[in-house]
Amino acid sequence: MTKPKLRIGLIGTGFMGKAHVFGFTSAPRVFELPFDLELHTVADITDAAAERARQTLGFAHATSDWRTIMANPEIDLVSITAPNALHKEMSLAAIAAGKHVYCEKPLAPLAADALEMTLAAEARGVKTQVGFNYLCNPMLGLARDMIAAGELGEIRGYRGIHCEDYMADPAGNYTFRHDPAGGGALADIGSHALATAEFLCGPVTRVMGDCVTMIAERPDGRGGRKAVTVDDVGRAFLRFANGATGSIEGNWIATGRKMQHDFEIYGTKGALAFSQERFNELHFFSTADAKGRQGFRRIEASPDHAPYGLFCVAAGHQIGFNDLKAIEVAGYINAIAGKAPEPFNFRAGLRIQTLVETIQRSSAAQEWLDVK
Amino acid sequence: MTKPKLRIGLIGTGFMGKAHVFGFTSAPRVFELPFDLELHTVADITDAAAERARQTLGFAHATSDWRTIMANPEIDLVSITAPNALHKEMSLAAIAAGKHVYCEKPLAPLAADALEMTLAAEARGVKTQVGFNYLCNPMLGLARDMIAAGELGEIRGYRGIHCEDYMADPAGNYTFRHDPAGGGALADIGSHALATAEFLCGPVTRVMGDCVTMIAERPDGRGGRKAVTVDDVGRAFLRFANGATGSIEGNWIATGRKMQHDFEIYGTKGALAFSQERFNELHFFSTADAKGRQGFRRIEASPDHAPYGLFCVAAGHQIGFNDLKAIEVAGYINAIAGKAPEPFNFRAGLRIQTLVETIQRSSAAQEWLDVK
Amino acid sequence: MTKPKLRIGLIGTGFMGKAHVFGFTSAPRVFELPFDLELHTVADITDAAAERARQTLGFAHATSDWRTIMANPEIDLVSITAPNALHKEMSLAAIAAGKHVYCEKPLAPLAADALEMTLAAEARGVKTQVGFNYLCNPMLGLARDMIAAGELGEIRGYRGIHCEDYMADPAGNYTFRHDPAGGGALADIGSHALATAEFLCGPVTRVMGDCVTMIAERPDGRGGRKAVTVDDVGRAFLRFANGATGSIEGNWIATGRKMQHDFEIYGTKGALAFSQERFNELHFFSTADAKGRQGFRRIEASPDHAPYGLFCVAAGHQIGFNDLKAIEVAGYINAIAGKAPEPFNFRAGLRIQTLVETIQRSSAAQEWLDVK
Amino acid sequence: MTKPKLRIGLIGTGFMGKAHVFGFTSAPRVFELPFDLELHTVADITDAAAERARQTLGFAHATSDWRTIMANPEIDLVSITAPNALHKEMSLAAIAAGKHVYCEKPLAPLAADALEMTLAAEARGVKTQVGFNYLCNPMLGLARDMIAAGELGEIRGYRGIHCEDYMADPAGNYTFRHDPAGGGALADIGSHALATAEFLCGPVTRVMGDCVTMIAERPDGRGGRKAVTVDDVGRAFLRFANGATGSIEGNWIATGRKMQHDFEIYGTKGALAFSQERFNELHFFSTADAKGRQGFRRIEASPDHAPYGLFCVAAGHQIGFNDLKAIEVAGYINAIAGKAPEPFNFRAGLRIQTLVETIQRSSAAQEWLDVK
Repeated sequence: MTKPKLRIGLIGTGFMGKAHVFGFTSAPRVFELPFDLELHTVADITDAAAERARQTLGFAHATSDWRTIMANPEIDLVSITAPNALHKEMSLAAIAAGKHVYCEKPLAPLAADALEMTLAAEARGVKTQVGFNYLCNPMLGLARDMIAAGELGEIRGYRGIHCEDYMADPAGNYTFRHDPAGGGALADIGSHALATAEFLCGPVTRVMGDCVTMIAERPDGRGGRKAVTVDDVGRAFLRFANGATGSIEGNWIATGRKMQHDFEIYGTKGALAFSQERFNELHFFSTADAKGRQGFRRIEASPDHAPYGLFCVAAGHQIGFNDLKAIEVAGYINAIAGKAPEPFNFRAGLRIQTLVETIQRSSAAQEWLDVK
Repeated sequence: MTKPKLRIGLIGTGFMGKAHVFGFTSAPRVFELPFDLELHTVADITDAAAERARQTLGFAHATSDWRTIMANPEIDLVSITAPNALHKEMSLAAIAAGKHVYCEKPLAPLAADALEMTLAAEARGVKTQVGFNYLCNPMLGLARDMIAAGELGEIRGYRGIHCEDYMADPAGNYTFRHDPAGGGALADIGSHALATAEFLCGPVTRVMGDCVTMIAERPDGRGGRKAVTVDDVGRAFLRFANGATGSIEGNWIATGRKMQHDFEIYGTKGALAFSQERFNELHFFSTADAKGRQGFRRIEASPDHAPYGLFCVAAGHQIGFNDLKAIEVAGYINAIAGKAPEPFNFRAGLRIQTLVETIQRSSAAQEWLDVK
Repeated sequence: MTKPKLRIGLIGTGFMGKAHVFGFTSAPRVFELPFDLELHTVADITDAAAERARQTLGFAHATSDWRTIMANPEIDLVSITAPNALHKEMSLAAIAAGKHVYCEKPLAPLAADALEMTLAAEARGVKTQVGFNYLCNPMLGLARDMIAAGELGEIRGYRGIHCEDYMADPAGNYTFRHDPAGGGALADIGSHALATAEFLCGPVTRVMGDCVTMIAERPDGRGGRKAVTVDDVGRAFLRFANGATGSIEGNWIATGRKMQHDFEIYGTKGALAFSQERFNELHFFSTADAKGRQGFRRIEASPDHAPYGLFCVAAGHQIGFNDLKAIEVAGYINAIAGKAPEPFNFRAGLRIQTLVETIQRSSAAQEWLDVK
Repeated sequence: MTKPKLRIGLIGTGFMGKAHVFGFTSAPRVFELPFDLELHTVADITDAAAERARQTLGFAHATSDWRTIMANPEIDLVSITAPNALHKEMSLAAIAAGKHVYCEKPLAPLAADALEMTLAAEARGVKTQVGFNYLCNPMLGLARDMIAAGELGEIRGYRGIHCEDYMADPAGNYTFRHDPAGGGALADIGSHALATAEFLCGPVTRVMGDCVTMIAERPDGRGGRKAVTVDDVGRAFLRFANGATGSIEGNWIATGRKMQHDFEIYGTKGALAFSQERFNELHFFSTADAKGRQGFRRIEASPDHAPYGLFCVAAGHQIGFNDLKAIEVAGYINAIAGKAPEPFNFRAGLRIQTLVETIQRSSAAQEWLDVK
């Protein structure tokens, strides 16, 4: 029995482009998918670059004009890994052509744009996805399941961080990540902390932000200096709809930290602690354990935590970052087939950007704001 | 050569009273002190309790009237470990009698009272101490020395927490720690997080607070219920005089956490991470380490980190909580002899209470406040 | 410029078969390989199973007779993931047909068979590989490089273990892993500990073994019981040619341990500690660090540790078990092209089996034995 | 009600002498003891040293002749912390005088001497103690209780180590610890690993030793060199009377390790892991935990683990090395009063030395030996 085909066009061939291809090629070997995925056309800036990518990545066709992909009725799904500033134009074109769109985060520099993209996709009825890969970790799924099942009791407190040090060196150049529209640590990585917070605890209803610029100017890469106005550290106090309170921090000048996407969550019956630096582990404290025998236990990812078992036959082997991408792709492909809800669609991406912008506005106004 | 004597009166014989005695008796065996310490008089509520404490703790005299201690010219130093509400009256009486005063934290429920006590002590010229024992940890001293020596470069970010779970059970009774004046998680343990923050990074100049009550009423211990208005979780954004920004959290309903007095501090050249749950360790990241060889290194407390070597001959043996108290006492005794500055005097205790109250007011007003 | 093709035949489609395919398909996307890899023919027990595997795994042809693969001159490389007992016959057939052979470990139940296979491959001039994937970890490569560069000084001591608990339940059935020929914990996983020991410290010259059976009989899966004679725990004292001494333990009844492939290695100038449970980390102690600042530092896998950077753009992301397989395949393909030495060929596999058998014989004889 | 007095004589005022005094003075404040302890006489090499120790340590009398202590009928208990070579003569003199004897480990350089001391003490009916302080850790008591209660099921495997690096530097002088009689890493610290192994798993019945000298000569401290014949690393395979098998390692050249007194113990229902570097923690794996929720849990020392609660009011505060000494003293004083069995008497010390010597002989003979 042959499966229907799903033909893919890819725009952008940098790290995230490769990660998408990794997902498209490994997901079918790991998961039983409803479609055969076909790498149809890849687009890059020049013909030479596109052709090179075609060979390396295994596409059938190459183009230096991304509009070719939109115009080709054979293509069902467009992966957009081009610079952020182009996400909106490309997505709207793909949506208009009735194609499913898989867009890297952030959806667009501004929430207003993300909203326009979301509404367009919903109106056209295409399936969308934004790349929030950390949420695809089986241990985060486990955490969410445990919370939903009441294993922690009522949730009372949350503390999430995402700290790295890739902008810690003041001699590093000004990049597009420093652009006022859509830039800053909160938008770039604090957004992950926010996504995880809502993934686990449900909607945030109110925020108080604290966004600070610590490195006020950077080399512009052409011998001059350029002022930086976006935040190097973005913090927020949070109120959740479920009554819990919490905080997050996004920090890209956290010297020594490489992937500190960590959280602690406290409930009336238990607690969880997690660090992305050891993302195949989840630490669980239960007040149900016997007196004198209580403590945070280190649960190692295992076949008990689907879909880990599709990657490794036993606990302790560990999945890697790229495997998270395969899980992300599989979820999306199943959504396209109507077999599962969209795990992280444009509306979800819009939500995170709304949170980011509300925190930024709260910080500027120095007041608590409701999240609309 | 005999040393001069320093005669001690103790008020209160509970856990902290015993801890003071532990400090007074072990400090002289560990440190070369300028005085011989003599346990002169102990005061408790009843004659019987006082006499029992006299025998157990090794004092020469016992009394059920603490004013006896103040009236006795033989006594040089008064240790106050009575309930918080009595700290002010007792301290002022001792100061008036020209005695040195060693008072458990918090100095008084309100900063205004703490100020009065501080001014009285300074006017009378007696030496004072508040029990902020965590700061006596050699590893915190190491952290401060490293920062002062520039090993971390310029300090940019700070994140401190003090989370425990001793109030996590809503069935636990209302206690004096829930009293509106001086109560709450921020005052009780968030104060430690603040003390450590300033100990390491210097003065906090501005704060934004977030104090929340999660368990709105508790059993009153007499069959009824009593409303709780103090915070179960107290958070704050911080601005430091040195230009750094940061945050702290005090949380006494953090299920599973027993002594999470932790911090991370990020500088331009390095970073430190610490957890009180493993307080004989300090984790240090240095950008000066060779490429490909960088990482947080686990420094174990050792004789290189004075005064650890007075307690243990080699790294890895580890000091305990009570040893911190001995270090605290030794510092104070040296200050009384004029051989060292007061390590944590009433003014320092006042400072912490001022910070706590400013954060509480900021939270209530929902606005940033300068720390006066 | 098109690359020459390397056509692959696969025998066996279980977990390791899939892992090989994963390696063959992901290695070319991650590495710049000298061949285009083509999944030519897959063999399984029945036509149906083979056809299903063909579709799922992406091969062009399927067969239920593995000899078809040997007979087909189009096929350049044969992957053997069939049961251990068949490794020898299949390998010899492939070698005789002039094909490169990639065989899962152990090469054969007995060292004598492994020797025959090795000599055949060397005589025929084909390139071989045995799947010792843990050694492909960039952090183990880092460890070896550091040792070779003298960063630890002279090596003095080694302690390696590989402990898991997949045989801890006495109710688990007797399996082929319990067969006297080639079975037991030492052969199954202690072999990994031995491979790592020699990878890092060079040749072991002398051993004293201690192999014990703790669960003396198991269900035979057909309602009866079957005696077990192989070891559940295999230990050895080791002498290395470089003068160091050490020990290893292989243990498959280590309740709670899932992948404790750990080692510590002590040199005159430094030490390393590693755990496979967190295999993206290597812990390094250097006596060159400043006094009072020494400690084991946690080096996180990063692009400084090739080939990690081909999988992830930054430290902290982490590679997974399957990525180790891709690295293993890439090394082999380069060896086939003559661009690199064979990273772990049949002779290396023979070496490990020789070590295992010498330890087993030493244990039985209760005497130290030279490793021939 | 006044308690009877127990008058103490101390020989030796170095680190262990101070540790004994610490124990004698802090134990009564922490525990309800059956005697009042009185520091009667301290002996050191010279009158001046003894007098200085008298003042610092708080004894009533001082002497430069340790026989004075034996001759004084007022003295009930003699603490011996003099060099190992003197332990026997001093102990026998104290026993002959009918005094209780508290002797630092090792009891004597040779097991034959330890036996003589043991028999003498038993014949005379005095209570004895050897300082195996690690066993006084509440977490080790917890481990033993859990094993005894069957929480781990049947014990199957044990792995114990005691690794430090205080002899790692070959430039370090030859010391009494290098003397052929009683010296070496196995005797010095491997003995602790053996004591813990038997404390937890019961008697060892058979051993195979591997004792190696890695630094063959050392400076003699007088400009010359001296050959070293004792082991720098001592390893052993073990058989236990309960059917379990295991291993230990004592290693004093383990670069970077300061107090790696660690063990793992595997049973049919659970496992324990412990490291002295974090000795207020015990890690417990239970197969009774729910599927998908299993993992090693970090139990922090708390008032649930007596006698921790006498030192600290809550979990997380942590006791230190010196507190272990107070626990050791309290156990001994209760034994003297006949209120408890001797926790670690001369016979127990003899046992450990017998184990050490049997392992040394096994290593020399290269054969398994029964432990007599």
